[in-house]
Amino acid sequence: MLCVNVELNDRRYPIYIGENTLTNPELYPLNAGQKVMIVSNPTIAQYYLETLTHTLEKIGCVVEHVLLPDGEQHKNLDSLNLIFTALLKGNHGRDTTLIALGGGVIGDVAGYAAASYQRGIPFIQIPTTLLAQVDSSVGGKTAVNHELGKNMIGAFYQPIAVIIDTQTLHTLPKREVNAGLAEVIKYGAILDLPFFNWLEEHIDKLVTLQTDALQYCIARCCQIKADIVARDETEKGDRALLNLGHTFGHAIEAHLGYGNWLHGEAVSVGMMMAAVFSEKLGHLAPQDVARIEKLLARANLPTVSPDGMQPEEYLPYMMRDKKVIAGKLRLVLLKQLGQAYVAKDADRDLVLNAIRCCTQTH
Amino acid sequence: MLCVNVELNDRRYPIYIGENTLTNPELYPLNAGQKVMIVSNPTIAQYYLETLTHTLEKIGCVVEHVLLPDGEQHKNLDSLNLIFTALLKGNHGRDTTLIALGGGVIGDVAGYAAASYQRGIPFIQIPTTLLAQVDSSVGGKTAVNHELGKNMIGAFYQPIAVIIDTQTLHTLPKREVNAGLAEVIKYGAILDLPFFNWLEEHIDKLVTLQTDALQYCIARCCQIKADIVARDETEKGDRALLNLGHTFGHAIEAHLGYGNWLHGEAVSVGMMMAAVFSEKLGHLAPQDVARIEKLLARANLPTVSPDGMQPEEYLPYMMRDKKVIAGKLRLVLLKQLGQAYVAKDADRDLVLNAIRCCTQTH
Repeated sequence: MLCVNVELNDRRYPIYIGENTLTNPELYPLNAGQKVMIVSNPTIAQYYLETLTHTLEKIGCVVEHVLLPDGEQHKNLDSLNLIFTALLKGNHGRDTTLIALGGGVIGDVAGYAAASYQRGIPFIQIPTTLLAQVDSSVGGKTAVNHELGKNMIGAFYQPIAVIIDTQTLHTLPKREVNAGLAEVIKYGAILDLPFFNWLEEHIDKLVTLQTDALQYCIARCCQIKADIVARDETEKGDRALLNLGHTFGHAIEAHLGYGNWLHGEAVSVGMMMAAVFSEKLGHLAPQDVARIEKLLARANLPTVSPDGMQPEEYLPYMMRDKKVIAGKLRLVLLKQLGQAYVAKDADRDLVLNAIRCCTQTH
Repeated sequence: MLCVNVELNDRRYPIYIGENTLTNPELYPLNAGQKVMIVSNPTIAQYYLETLTHTLEKIGCVVEHVLLPDGEQHKNLDSLNLIFTALLKGNHGRDTTLIALGGGVIGDVAGYAAASYQRGIPFIQIPTTLLAQVDSSVGGKTAVNHELGKNMIGAFYQPIAVIIDTQTLHTLPKREVNAGLAEVIKYGAILDLPFFNWLEEHIDKLVTLQTDALQYCIARCCQIKADIVARDETEKGDRALLNLGHTFGHAIEAHLGYGNWLHGEAVSVGMMMAAVFSEKLGHLAPQDVARIEKLLARANLPTVSPDGMQPEEYLPYMMRDKKVIAGKLRLVLLKQLGQAYVAKDADRDLVLNAIRCCTQTH
């Protein structure tokens, strides 16, 4: 087992990463007699709810649970209210700990519920998807969607512990494992060339879910993100680098309708576009663009624009990005492999050109 | 005009108190070109929305507004969502400032919306009721109700400025002015004997809304509360003293159905019960109980239990109080006039006895 400590201004919390951490009672910062509310969804609950409940009961906790309907379309105020209702019906006070057992949606909704219930109760995250493990388990971003915008309602709220069990990836659809690897590759590309090199050596072990490789990989990603977040807890500077490929990717997701491509798949293509654009600006060497493309392909990820989406269709979506300031398109690009920066006023013709280079021609 | 500075761990903000502060552009921490969303309700908007909008436009702000339905029954997630929808429709980002123009309900809902929209945007409070001016403008408590409990969903979130205009009290129903005075008298009783003495001299000026007296009184209350909150921002200790009379008062409100008695009216009777109980414990002198009773009566506030509510009916409600721990009733009582403390295990027979002493006999 590995442990990454996230250090913030006035708090710190541990992220435990390993095999069967879920069933290790010693990792939970809970005592006998404490009340716990597990938040999960039916898909995850069928595999892990009983095991987790049993582990917490071993500690002596009084355990209840509430299941939310599965899927991004339920990441809203209604699901949030289901958690509040369960907490109030069970007569829970400020000393109850909320545990999120599931992927990014469960973590985001449960985290925001923990931030809001009686103005804040303790919160433990058990992310069960690779994406949630390497991304949302660090940073304290919690949110629900509004019908007019994703993640528009939420709070910065930190967990007291994160418990990552690599075993949970064995029940995750392969396609979602691969999508998680897009974010993993992103960490190497933006900030950590040695990790990128390591990924080139170990990507097959990750795709086939070998424990040691997964454990190191997840810990490295959490450490990179923890370092960024420690420098920039409320997202005013460096944290933007984490969005490599995301502005292009969001355009794909919005164009196809959310849920048709997975987030990581869209980010994969977005990263390619950012890499090609960086090459055109004379920063990234052609062979490094090729390295990124090859690594993404080995993780079974798409590297070209979806069928039928025209290059011209990207820009209108991209101009709605939160990073656009005064009509200027800001993009995360690569100075070199392992070093990202924010381009403050990207030339639209060059952007279009880069998108064209990553579009399928039939 | 007076100014109270609220000092917190890592921030500070000013509370301006005076006549026509609402129309003084210099008091607003806003610049030309900034976007502003005013949150109010139709009752308040008819008096002050145009004036406020005009003042903000003088600064050069781009001003929009959203009106919430009036009343405690609308202090819920639906009203919160009305604010989010208005913000998203108007394409507002993290640089928009939310302004709450209204009483406690508007302040609580708008404050929570500001805490939550895109995980936090700046927030200015313009409380227009005496209760909101002396109570909710300090402390950063924001919340909405859940059908199973009041103020159960919210955040600790501090404004960047509070602007209190004593003129707004002239459009407030007299009964609400008086109810606000119950909380004012409470500050003197729990922590500040000289202020209690001052209130005995000036209560008639407050009841008749004389500006100088109001200004001093509101500033003094804000200062007392600011001192407590600075010591105890997230409500773990001293802040409990602010609940003098509230445990009894909540029983009255719950028994009568919320909205039949005003909160301040119920607190007035609750303070009398706490005072009589304190006297029975040998702490408070009988003449001090009489002073409290007389001051409340001069503010046209009730000092005896509502018609038809039996003394035995209080305890079941009181035992549901958030301050009850392990079945033990904790009550804020008075050691002497101007000095409150928390009694950790109040004897129920004595409590009942005190309630009886404040019950009308026909």
